[in-house]
Amino acid sequence: MRRSRRLKHWGWGYEDQAPTAAQLREAAAGIRERFGFGGEARAAVPPAEVEVRAPRLRRPEAFGDLFTDEKYERVSRALGKAYRDVVRGHRGEFEHPPDLVALPRDCSEVGTVLSWAEAEGAAVVPFGGGTSVVGGVEARLGDRPVVTMDLRRLDRLVEVDATSLAARIEAGATGPRLEEQLREHGLTMRCFPQSFEYATLGGWIATRAGGHFATRETHVDDLVESVRAVTPRGTWESRRLPGSGAGPSPDRLLLGSEGILGAITDAWVRVRPRPEWKAAATVRFEGFADACEAVREIVQAGLDPANCRLLEAAEAEMTGAGDGSAHLLLLAFESAHHPVDGPLQVALAAAEDHGGRPDAPRVTEPSPPSHSGRNPPSTGRKLKEGLSFRPTNKGGAREGDGSAAESWRGAFLLAPYLRDTFVSCGVLSETFETAITWDRLEEFHAAVMATTRRVVAEVSGAPREGRGAPLVTCRFTHAYPDGVAPYFTVLAPAVRGGEVEQWDEVKAAVSEALLEGGGTITHHHAIGRDHRPWYDRQRPAPFAAALRAAKAELDPAAILNPGVLLDP
Amino acid sequence: MRRSRRLKHWGWGYEDQAPTAAQLREAAAGIRERFGFGGEARAAVPPAEVEVRAPRLRRPEAFGDLFTDEKYERVSRALGKAYRDVVRGHRGEFEHPPDLVALPRDCSEVGTVLSWAEAEGAAVVPFGGGTSVVGGVEARLGDRPVVTMDLRRLDRLVEVDATSLAARIEAGATGPRLEEQLREHGLTMRCFPQSFEYATLGGWIATRAGGHFATRETHVDDLVESVRAVTPRGTWESRRLPGSGAGPSPDRLLLGSEGILGAITDAWVRVRPRPEWKAAATVRFEGFADACEAVREIVQAGLDPANCRLLEAAEAEMTGAGDGSAHLLLLAFESAHHPVDGPLQVALAAAEDHGGRPDAPRVTEPSPPSHSGRNPPSTGRKLKEGLSFRPTNKGGAREGDGSAAESWRGAFLLAPYLRDTFVSCGVLSETFETAITWDRLEEFHAAVMATTRRVVAEVSGAPREGRGAPLVTCRFTHAYPDGVAPYFTVLAPAVRGGEVEQWDEVKAAVSEALLEGGGTITHHHAIGRDHRPWYDRQRPAPFAAALRAAKAELDPAAILNPGVLLDP
Repeated sequence: MRRSRRLKHWGWGYEDQAPTAAQLREAAAGIRERFGFGGEARAAVPPAEVEVRAPRLRRPEAFGDLFTDEKYERVSRALGKAYRDVVRGHRGEFEHPPDLVALPRDCSEVGTVLSWAEAEGAAVVPFGGGTSVVGGVEARLGDRPVVTMDLRRLDRLVEVDATSLAARIEAGATGPRLEEQLREHGLTMRCFPQSFEYATLGGWIATRAGGHFATRETHVDDLVESVRAVTPRGTWESRRLPGSGAGPSPDRLLLGSEGILGAITDAWVRVRPRPEWKAAATVRFEGFADACEAVREIVQAGLDPANCRLLEAAEAEMTGAGDGSAHLLLLAFESAHHPVDGPLQVALAAAEDHGGRPDAPRVTEPSPPSHSGRNPPSTGRKLKEGLSFRPTNKGGAREGDGSAAESWRGAFLLAPYLRDTFVSCGVLSETFETAITWDRLEEFHAAVMATTRRVVAEVSGAPREGRGAPLVTCRFTHAYPDGVAPYFTVLAPAVRGGEVEQWDEVKAAVSEALLEGGGTITHHHAIGRDHRPWYDRQRPAPFAAALRAAKAELDPAAILNPGVLLDP
Repeated sequence: MRRSRRLKHWGWGYEDQAPTAAQLREAAAGIRERFGFGGEARAAVPPAEVEVRAPRLRRPEAFGDLFTDEKYERVSRALGKAYRDVVRGHRGEFEHPPDLVALPRDCSEVGTVLSWAEAEGAAVVPFGGGTSVVGGVEARLGDRPVVTMDLRRLDRLVEVDATSLAARIEAGATGPRLEEQLREHGLTMRCFPQSFEYATLGGWIATRAGGHFATRETHVDDLVESVRAVTPRGTWESRRLPGSGAGPSPDRLLLGSEGILGAITDAWVRVRPRPEWKAAATVRFEGFADACEAVREIVQAGLDPANCRLLEAAEAEMTGAGDGSAHLLLLAFESAHHPVDGPLQVALAAAEDHGGRPDAPRVTEPSPPSHSGRNPPSTGRKLKEGLSFRPTNKGGAREGDGSAAESWRGAFLLAPYLRDTFVSCGVLSETFETAITWDRLEEFHAAVMATTRRVVAEVSGAPREGRGAPLVTCRFTHAYPDGVAPYFTVLAPAVRGGEVEQWDEVKAAVSEALLEGGGTITHHHAIGRDHRPWYDRQRPAPFAAALRAAKAELDPAAILNPGVLLDP
């Protein structure tokens, strides 16, 4: 069942999700009409016509089906999902296919793959869902042979501790796969990055993925209780602890290590009962600065909304969440334990104080009898109900309620699919994300927008304003008491055949602006190979030296994902 | 002014805080009466009679007053504040005094100290408040000369960003010093470890101190926005960012590094306006297991109380917070933005569901006009007031309200002073702290209590029960959705002259029990030298190798705090 679908050999999603030629033609016309740019739809080079170099490693027979040299496997694991990857995949250009793909079933087989590769002088690229948008899985290593280690066979929920609300899950489990297994226990991890459908737990940990929560537990980091990774020099396994102060955190050195120190095989993660109380509202703002101040007050008040995403008017319009007449703040609180319309009202009051106009809150309560079984007896329940603060539209709203948040969520999950269509139709489509403290936000946002608009217009030869001008929009994906994570989206006419160079130029200019403005080169997309030049300047030099030394110690033959975070 | 008081050359606090001989005699009698053990008070060896070896390093004249070889400085910086340190200090035994004490004024002078020491082949021990209870500041290095680098001259608030609620503070600022400077801006860091009065920001960061908050931001880790440290191979300075996913976190490798990678000189930390709304209550439980379940429900509900400390009945009695008839749960919420009696009521309802009996909540509201200047205009204010849920005793409670929480807080801050008195009066007084997931708590707690009771009775020759039996009590200092941090306190008859050996035996047995039960050797007391044997077993071997390699890279001459975390 869940094994019968294969990932597309290029772009986003499964093979059966690709649009037909007629659908693509229609899409191309629609894009031209809506944006004033884009060309005719071009079909991707079909798998059969893709040419890849012969494997430079001979598949070792001794290990059964642990290694494969099948073309589909090698091609579909050759690239990530950055715009420059999707463009090349669409053209059938797979410059750096792995020579072999390894499919370990357990920790011991992961160790076997590492030992074999080390003996062969081959590099090993750990591979989860392959959703990297930063060149994290493409081994650009010249003559050095490469084994891509796909962890998809390690996809089980191994153990549940319902008392501590924690679960041990294998690294290759995708979002849906791990949620499906947790659901049997009435639990959820609630880590919903945009890559949710395909990306894996191990990938999230290795890249410090940003998840569902717009505040507080913004990265997967905070959901990790302990991690196990196999390194070329033994297994790295931390204790299951709710908190510890014993030296620098071992887990925090693996979090974000992007496969250069070891291959993560499983982790104990913090889970929770499914939320049954929800309260959400959308707030419209005329001024963007006012909206920022509202977000700042809400997070600095310690209200911790699960959703707190600010969409610029243009971004709201593009995603269908709004009509472009106002900036939208999507606010939502959730709990498996008690009503949350109280904190929503406090947040809405703060938003109103900054000129926001909230719509009617949508409040969800558990349908009796509750499924969670964690409801307290009547006394407590009564008190908890007392917390409900003047709910309006009580019980009327569920997921799929036609709200701005719902439209945005749909667009959010659709975006990577849509990008394949953009690529087919000659549209450059890219995103940049960062984080910055509040004090520098206004200037930073203005500078990054200006740079992006300028360079995108330059490389696409498009007008800077009016019909046919590139679209550059912004939203805030995560918010903190001391700052925010802005996320920029770009749509522009692609120069056909020159997309990669075009992208490289935009990437470089925008990345410079992010760095110069004091931001981070990535808030949750990771470093990979594409962010290296700016990451190298951002990180403290002694830390880089420490990381290099740590890697040399654990991976002396430098087999693990060479070129990521550090030079190969 | 603030420079006029000198720290005692042994034990806790300033010189002028030592009890008189008459007070000590009285205390000894009181202790014997209350506990049925303890002996006559013995005076500490006075500073003038302390003998220390001559400095093995000649004070370099070229650097003015950067280095000193004064006896008081060398003696008072020779030991931390573990029981075994206080005992030895009391006896006048300072085996490992630093040869010189360095007192840098800025980053550049910190670099000078490191360079000079490296050239001289000397070790450098970074020193904050010297409150380590794990041998973190005692250089047990045999013939190797030692410079203790006291950072007390770096104690300034350098910069405040009131918009992002962050402040740059130098590492040598003690708790009161940094809070006094933040107060001028209406801000507070609210990091209140037991060592608050003497310990420093740099020390907290280097040891991952546990602070004020019983849930959520339990360690100083979460309050750190960026850190600067001087290493022997250059300055390690991270960017100010509210969040980032750019590789493994550089800050998280310095957090808990205990001075082995570099000397922390300053940090940007997250601060906040002083809380003006508070809501607190004490809940009594007959069954300890019920009380644990209440705590578990409260933290798993995501309520995040600022205080959520469970005291076993015996511990409550010992600290004067209770009469020993019930286990006490101290609950408190606080906010600078809105009323918090609503979440307190939800928490109390949960506690009642588990058999808890709450006293009347104490609710504090800001006195008009508010000092924070952050109050929203009337609309928002009205809504926020609407959140107040049936407050009782409104406005009647302030700090110092005579509540159980207040008694406990007083005892908490007094404990280290009291320990000096215990040492003088022949009482062994020690604490052990750890963390464990909820699923293992019951068995773990029972096993650690049993081991501690057994070994303490053995080494003290005291009866295991009845009058004169050692006291072993427990509280939970921090609580997490997936577990809790138990903290054990021991009082027993000391074997005079054999206190260190007695302590070593207890320490070893209890530490074994912590490790075997699956806990951590420390939740917030750090590793130092005393926790090494168990830390070495607890941490993943490849992580130890990585840390060793990182240190070798940044500190090739191994001058920085040798013996801490890693072998010298």
